[in-house]
Amino acid sequence: MLPSWIIIDPLLQSWLIEDIGRGDRTTMGIASKLAQMGKAEWVFKEAGIAAGLPVAGRVFQLLDSRVMFTATVDEGEQCDLDQVTVRIHGAMEALLTGERVALNLAMHLCGIATMTSHYASKISDFPAQLVDTRKTTPGLRVLEKYASWVGGAKNHRMGLDDAVMIKDNHIAAAGGIGEAIACIRDCTPYPLTIEVEASSMEEVEAALRHRAEIIMLDNMSTSEMKNAVELIRQTHDWVKVEASGNITLDRIRDVAATGVDYISTSAPITQSPWLDISMRLSTS
Amino acid sequence: MLPSWIIIDPLLQSWLIEDIGRGDRTTMGIASKLAQMGKAEWVFKEAGIAAGLPVAGRVFQLLDSRVMFTATVDEGEQCDLDQVTVRIHGAMEALLTGERVALNLAMHLCGIATMTSHYASKISDFPAQLVDTRKTTPGLRVLEKYASWVGGAKNHRMGLDDAVMIKDNHIAAAGGIGEAIACIRDCTPYPLTIEVEASSMEEVEAALRHRAEIIMLDNMSTSEMKNAVELIRQTHDWVKVEASGNITLDRIRDVAATGVDYISTSAPITQSPWLDISMRLSTS
Amino acid sequence: MLPSWIIIDPLLQSWLIEDIGRGDRTTMGIASKLAQMGKAEWVFKEAGIAAGLPVAGRVFQLLDSRVMFTATVDEGEQCDLDQVTVRIHGAMEALLTGERVALNLAMHLCGIATMTSHYASKISDFPAQLVDTRKTTPGLRVLEKYASWVGGAKNHRMGLDDAVMIKDNHIAAAGGIGEAIACIRDCTPYPLTIEVEASSMEEVEAALRHRAEIIMLDNMSTSEMKNAVELIRQTHDWVKVEASGNITLDRIRDVAATGVDYISTSAPITQSPWLDISMRLSTS
Amino acid sequence: MLPSWIIIDPLLQSWLIEDIGRGDRTTMGIASKLAQMGKAEWVFKEAGIAAGLPVAGRVFQLLDSRVMFTATVDEGEQCDLDQVTVRIHGAMEALLTGERVALNLAMHLCGIATMTSHYASKISDFPAQLVDTRKTTPGLRVLEKYASWVGGAKNHRMGLDDAVMIKDNHIAAAGGIGEAIACIRDCTPYPLTIEVEASSMEEVEAALRHRAEIIMLDNMSTSEMKNAVELIRQTHDWVKVEASGNITLDRIRDVAATGVDYISTSAPITQSPWLDISMRLSTS
Amino acid sequence: MLPSWIIIDPLLQSWLIEDIGRGDRTTMGIASKLAQMGKAEWVFKEAGIAAGLPVAGRVFQLLDSRVMFTATVDEGEQCDLDQVTVRIHGAMEALLTGERVALNLAMHLCGIATMTSHYASKISDFPAQLVDTRKTTPGLRVLEKYASWVGGAKNHRMGLDDAVMIKDNHIAAAGGIGEAIACIRDCTPYPLTIEVEASSMEEVEAALRHRAEIIMLDNMSTSEMKNAVELIRQTHDWVKVEASGNITLDRIRDVAATGVDYISTSAPITQSPWLDISMRLSTS
Amino acid sequence: MLPSWIIIDPLLQSWLIEDIGRGDRTTMGIASKLAQMGKAEWVFKEAGIAAGLPVAGRVFQLLDSRVMFTATVDEGEQCDLDQVTVRIHGAMEALLTGERVALNLAMHLCGIATMTSHYASKISDFPAQLVDTRKTTPGLRVLEKYASWVGGAKNHRMGLDDAVMIKDNHIAAAGGIGEAIACIRDCTPYPLTIEVEASSMEEVEAALRHRAEIIMLDNMSTSEMKNAVELIRQTHDWVKVEASGNITLDRIRDVAATGVDYISTSAPITQSPWLDISMRLSTS
Repeated sequence: MLPSWIIIDPLLQSWLIEDIGRGDRTTMGIASKLAQMGKAEWVFKEAGIAAGLPVAGRVFQLLDSRVMFTATVDEGEQCDLDQVTVRIHGAMEALLTGERVALNLAMHLCGIATMTSHYASKISDFPAQLVDTRKTTPGLRVLEKYASWVGGAKNHRMGLDDAVMIKDNHIAAAGGIGEAIACIRDCTPYPLTIEVEASSMEEVEAALRHRAEIIMLDNMSTSEMKNAVELIRQTHDWVKVEASGNITLDRIRDVAATGVDYISTSAPITQSPWLDISMRLSTS
Repeated sequence: MLPSWIIIDPLLQSWLIEDIGRGDRTTMGIASKLAQMGKAEWVFKEAGIAAGLPVAGRVFQLLDSRVMFTATVDEGEQCDLDQVTVRIHGAMEALLTGERVALNLAMHLCGIATMTSHYASKISDFPAQLVDTRKTTPGLRVLEKYASWVGGAKNHRMGLDDAVMIKDNHIAAAGGIGEAIACIRDCTPYPLTIEVEASSMEEVEAALRHRAEIIMLDNMSTSEMKNAVELIRQTHDWVKVEASGNITLDRIRDVAATGVDYISTSAPITQSPWLDISMRLSTS
Repeated sequence: MLPSWIIIDPLLQSWLIEDIGRGDRTTMGIASKLAQMGKAEWVFKEAGIAAGLPVAGRVFQLLDSRVMFTATVDEGEQCDLDQVTVRIHGAMEALLTGERVALNLAMHLCGIATMTSHYASKISDFPAQLVDTRKTTPGLRVLEKYASWVGGAKNHRMGLDDAVMIKDNHIAAAGGIGEAIACIRDCTPYPLTIEVEASSMEEVEAALRHRAEIIMLDNMSTSEMKNAVELIRQTHDWVKVEASGNITLDRIRDVAATGVDYISTSAPITQSPWLDISMRLSTS
Repeated sequence: MLPSWIIIDPLLQSWLIEDIGRGDRTTMGIASKLAQMGKAEWVFKEAGIAAGLPVAGRVFQLLDSRVMFTATVDEGEQCDLDQVTVRIHGAMEALLTGERVALNLAMHLCGIATMTSHYASKISDFPAQLVDTRKTTPGLRVLEKYASWVGGAKNHRMGLDDAVMIKDNHIAAAGGIGEAIACIRDCTPYPLTIEVEASSMEEVEAALRHRAEIIMLDNMSTSEMKNAVELIRQTHDWVKVEASGNITLDRIRDVAATGVDYISTSAPITQSPWLDISMRLSTS
Repeated sequence: MLPSWIIIDPLLQSWLIEDIGRGDRTTMGIASKLAQMGKAEWVFKEAGIAAGLPVAGRVFQLLDSRVMFTATVDEGEQCDLDQVTVRIHGAMEALLTGERVALNLAMHLCGIATMTSHYASKISDFPAQLVDTRKTTPGLRVLEKYASWVGGAKNHRMGLDDAVMIKDNHIAAAGGIGEAIACIRDCTPYPLTIEVEASSMEEVEAALRHRAEIIMLDNMSTSEMKNAVELIRQTHDWVKVEASGNITLDRIRDVAATGVDYISTSAPITQSPWLDISMRLSTS
Repeated sequence: MLPSWIIIDPLLQSWLIEDIGRGDRTTMGIASKLAQMGKAEWVFKEAGIAAGLPVAGRVFQLLDSRVMFTATVDEGEQCDLDQVTVRIHGAMEALLTGERVALNLAMHLCGIATMTSHYASKISDFPAQLVDTRKTTPGLRVLEKYASWVGGAKNHRMGLDDAVMIKDNHIAAAGGIGEAIACIRDCTPYPLTIEVEASSMEEVEAALRHRAEIIMLDNMSTSEMKNAVELIRQTHDWVKVEASGNITLDRIRDVAATGVDYISTSAPITQSPWLDISMRLSTS
């Protein structure tokens, strides 16, 4: 579920260069004294969901293509405190120089997957699915959304170009929701779906009338949502309904119970702490 | 305190391209209907420290060099809930297309500065200074460390190349701390400082004997730290002492009281939630 | 309807560098003798549709930001033989050095728009809309699809990431159409639509049963298409229907008459000759 | 006759990224169900000249270095309708994801080579050689000129930097042809040749007098060309003569009969339709 | 005589980034205390030829587009010890941060131009012209050759692609000089010239027989050269003759006296010391 | 002691592209006639220090990963006239195309190491160490400083970001040396050292008072230096002392005798001629 390395590698290279700068002075300094080959293990210092381990492995392989990196857990697997999740074997220099970038990436992605799974598990007995947003750390969109998916969410649109999302400002600018949709549909690739934000029943009705394909119920109360879902199901049952705004762990089950298809929240990406992972190194 | 734009701009460009992809379909779709010029305000939806606002402004200016972006607060200023912190004026298209990237950046950086200030304020009556680590989100090192500084920390080394940090593995590889330092100093640019991790008094003594310039007391108890600091001050008072490991808001004052020069923690960068900021747009 | 320059500029820069190489030897050689400022006109040497003129203008402005470039016709406008379509004013060096790249781009894009308009005009009295494909010249996807839109087509998906298209091979691999759709939908951003290729009524029925959102009738006879469209309209009228394969100017009206929503063909991009445009230069 | 991969690879990478964007959603979606390895054949759906097949093969290898790609025909070979020209064996994911970019490139290049061969074969019994121009699709200069060469043309200059071409505007600016040549030769790398456009006998004589090394007879009638060639051969037989402007399949033999060395036309690059090639995929 | 900035700017940007790294710590540190605007002069600390001053100016302008940079001498002008050659006015930060890169570039280029002028002036009363080689510092080819031209040399070919140079190894590989030329001419853009290395009269004769366009007399004695030149002038007076190998200041006049057209040496680029220039800064 | 290839490779690639441009016309032209495999030796045409040979080897391997490149001497080894220092085995095309870039790099770096060793050996019986400066050829900082180290110098700071260097202008701007240091230390990563230029005893005293960590004695007479060193040793023996300005081979021993820790000079990088190396090629 990761895109081809040809998409990911340029990011990893730039991140290695960011950390290495003009050279890893400590490792270069003792290079002649280093055992050629080393072994390392990654240990989870707290329980959580594994995500991004193959990407972290790729970091070492970009430094030295002969590094062997094996994740001993599957992506998305719940891991325990002190569990060994990765075994690495390769040139000591690559292990020392790549450690921080690889761990930074994995700790961040595991943190996202872990918080995502908390949200997702709350509603696992409802058909509603958790989705993420475009609130992602600049430069990490593809990987953070990957971690979000690993943790149990579906992804919302990946950028400004793979779906249309019409908000207040667009509607006001275009002089009404019908005008906005017509105008946008005219110049948008035809397979792209059009989502419209609605914060009242009137707006939901307008969106349906003008053939929005997804309606996002924005900051509605649970009972308003319920009414909106009912209306949509009765008349346009192929239209998808998304709930958004103020989605907390406390409230998410109530939102799911309204029958919406999707519940979007940025919290697992913007609020999650990194998961603590440490690397234990030994000469082989 | 930000590096020249020639260093920052390539990052911002790649982040805009990440979000825009093949084009902002919603904005392009209503472009002909948009008022040419718009105004926007940024409102803090929670109290916190302002950080990175000029960088966010640059995001809009890369889309359209005529955008006027004014932060109404200084970097590092404590802002209140609902405070207006930014005023923007410019082409509606640039405001709509750049909004998410600019906000994502600012929300993340303000989040870091805010949590940093909580840590820093705990020890403001001690000479000890808070410092960050190399645990930063890949691609954002310079900006996250900038936010950390804005929030009241000093920066630790920026990468693997601007200081030496000798850990267990290096010492083991080199066959002792003296060998490691000698060997590294020989091929390291001479103005670079050499920091050595020590987790016992024996290691502190060895580090001093071999002329380490910074000693990092790693995961020591408060009383061990106290002893180490005393020893160092008596015999090598130009050597800097850093405390590291398990630094919490509860414990940080006790650590500062040991007399160390620096206390390093990754928490404000790896654990901080984004600060909530929203953008209110209107035609001008 | 063009994406932000931040998306287009890196392409234009690389194309100027491709032509200029280590320097425009002819222009550099007489630079000291050149009148500082020059004027130029672009004349269409055959009738056709204007497309990409603003992009061509940007080429000159990247060489010298002070160049004034004015298209005297709108994008999509039908132009006559010998019509002046562009007026340029600026440094003679920029005009001479940028001429070929700017013309190459415009001639190619106008050629595409012109052939597209021939196809589109054939079916302008039907609701069916012409669409393009992913058969585009490597590196020119966004601009060729833009020219296609200017010429009267809608764009199909822009790449492998903004919609799903399930073909024979995918269905065979997944063990059936239902399995393929289920499996893909599970890990695809939720606003993305799923299109399924069908070459028989059985496949159309299967696609409907498994809730494909777009069905592409691939290489069907006109009467088969008619039957398929009828079935779809009766039972799933929100599903979009696309006709594909062997779409010629002769046959396109018959295809449109079957009631399909979209007719896709790569011909205007892969078969169109460049439109002949020449640049007349004079000192100002 | 292709330049080193170090020159070509960055182009191919950018073209794969253009198509894949944030990930090939269809293939990623069924990745777990795909047979690991697949086989594919490329079949020509119309007769034509093979060109660019090794470059297309490189596309797959950049996605997965283990892909085996074998062209069963030589570059420049005339192929029949339904002929199998390529066999591929490798990871199914790489075959599915790379198919479109590889085919787009090959279809375009084969189209160019095929039309070039039509022009070239018309004059194969004359010493005159067909040459191309700088009218090439932006970004594809090297590859389109390669296809042109494969099809039987020689290449004209590759860019603004590997030969000098003096036209009206340059002559006017410099105050005469002698001044232009003197001035340009003074600051041009000495092995570079200087070509001068001439549209009358007076201009031909001036060009000879000032030691132009190539003279391009621009838009002359066949009899004018004949006179010009005679003059040049009698007095400066080391000077090369090129005919340009209005070169059609009908007229090209008459032009060749005038005795010119080179006949330049952009038609095979700017007017050729893509050659139809399809890829048949099977699990291995 | 410099190529467009679009060719040079990416080099200058990468060079600024090389020096600045993650930020100019000294200048950033006192930024708040700096006078906004500053003035600077560049003073030559030894006599020499000015070269590359406009390029150095561009360095400052890339840091801050408002910097005013005026060279008070022409490129190629002989300057005296202590002569002021440049005046700069602009933001103090840009002046401090850009100083080293701009000076490094100018000192290197002036050094090249100065040594070039020593060689060139030795033979200024002969028709023979000094030329450079492909022995240039990696990454600086265009600029070092520009400095060479400013100092009074002509440029030889700029790279492996703008002229052909056939040496021993190529001739051996191809099975003879005629075979090598035929084979290369067949696939080389037709305006490119073919130069052949010859180290004996037999080789000169073979080169002439097979229509080499330039003959390089490699490591011949002065009298051998004289004979070769005579032969060539008598029979092929349009062929250019280059002398190469062991060209010293002592011997260059004798070589020129043989009547060769060009004398190539790498010395001014590979042996020249930098010219000493210092920058005097003051607040304005 | 070289940084990871991930740091060096992008430079080497850009340098190969600089030389190859659109293709090595000579080698491509005879490619079909070339023996597949070739052997080459590098011979030093003058005595000197080997430096950068592994980097030159990497140049060939980027063209063809199967090239075998073996340096028969160690980096830093003194080599004799006519000594064979390198053996290469690989595809003839890669050897021919990569030769110039690889040699240019090695000749330049060996030249630097050789002159560096002349300076270093002059003071080898003193504790003082030779150091380089930021006067390096743009784009080659890391490699030139590596050659400097190989030749026996230590490196000074690598860029504007890995140490602070306070000069006159900074002191004037900040209103005094204490203010400058305070202000800079406040926003500089804490492990970075602060060096201060001093040209009189008063300035040395001020620098010590404000806790500069390195003091650079700038253009002082030998006796002034001696006094300064004495003062520093007596009161702040952990402070490093650097001598700079007017360091010649004649004077360097006297400077070393003053007891300074470091003596910096740019001469080996800015004044050294390339070492002559030639490549002998044969078919294998």
